[in-house]
Amino acid sequence: MRILGIDPGLQVTGFGVIDTEGSALAYVASGVIKTSAAPVGDLPARLKLLFEGIRELHARYRPDAASVEIVFVNVNPQATLLLGQARGACVTALVACDLAVAEYTALQMKRAITGHGHATKAQIQEMVRRLLNLPAVPRQDAADALGLAITHAHAGASLARLEAAHPLKRTTSGMYRGGRGH
Amino acid sequence: MRILGIDPGLQVTGFGVIDTEGSALAYVASGVIKTSAAPVGDLPARLKLLFEGIRELHARYRPDAASVEIVFVNVNPQATLLLGQARGACVTALVACDLAVAEYTALQMKRAITGHGHATKAQIQEMVRRLLNLPAVPRQDAADALGLAITHAHAGASLARLEAAHPLKRTTSGMYRGGRGH
Repeated sequence: MRILGIDPGLQVTGFGVIDTEGSALAYVASGVIKTSAAPVGDLPARLKLLFEGIRELHARYRPDAASVEIVFVNVNPQATLLLGQARGACVTALVACDLAVAEYTALQMKRAITGHGHATKAQIQEMVRRLLNLPAVPRQDAADALGLAITHAHAGASLARLEAAHPLKRTTSGMYRGGRGH
Repeated sequence: MRILGIDPGLQVTGFGVIDTEGSALAYVASGVIKTSAAPVGDLPARLKLLFEGIRELHARYRPDAASVEIVFVNVNPQATLLLGQARGACVTALVACDLAVAEYTALQMKRAITGHGHATKAQIQEMVRRLLNLPAVPRQDAADALGLAITHAHAGASLARLEAAHPLKRTTSGMYRGGRGH
């Protein structure tokens, strides 16, 4: 299974693509979508760049599933609103590509990657480098996105083990979701 | 010119379509996109319904421009984040259809429709009914969306008068935008 991880942001959205087979992980690609080409103050133009950027990733890498960070309320409510819109554009682009979208909090990702929820950004970068056998640490946005893809791979592997032991009925809302109530 | 007004919401998004020629306005359609068919807690599924709903409106009515309400920070930060994501999905759907998206605050819309910023929901509904010669008041979400379309029509007419007197250079970010800094 190929997983596309997305760390949404209005200025910079990180992405990471991995292949997973059982518990084996393989790095495919990572990087960022930047929206700095949009005219200053033009939010619709920024959202369009995010939408198109994700469509291009989908066309290039053909992932089977997507894993997106659940963003949190910022101290600045206006920033929260803008981040929400950026995430909305990213998730919309993914579902428009008919991808199943799993959602994980930063805490869930940190626990999956480093084993605890208090990991620093540098610790996540280093663990992502090790887990994927990379020659150097990926930049921060890309590391978070790769971390989200790995988190989803782990969740899938855990679920597969669970299902083998106790077959479960799948729900229509997806088995691997992060479980935030809306 | 045909204008599609959108009043974004995660549960219910209002829409209104009008035709405008000079200062003449004509009602085309209005209604709501509901996301209640999505499984409870499945935000990506809701955003997909918004995206597909707006794509359907675009295919059916072929608007020339869109006018979307600038949403504000809610007392509940989590609600702000969800509303932001819903608005992000709506704007993304519009720009994915290659529509120019104008943005207005509720205050700007109220002033354009009723002449003052303290209008009640009922006053907006009644003024929209009168301006568009409707047999009955539209429901609230649809009235707001029609109000946003009318606001954009008025802004366009004002600008046309201004341009006739003092020809202006058009900016790449669009002349009719609501003017919020991001």
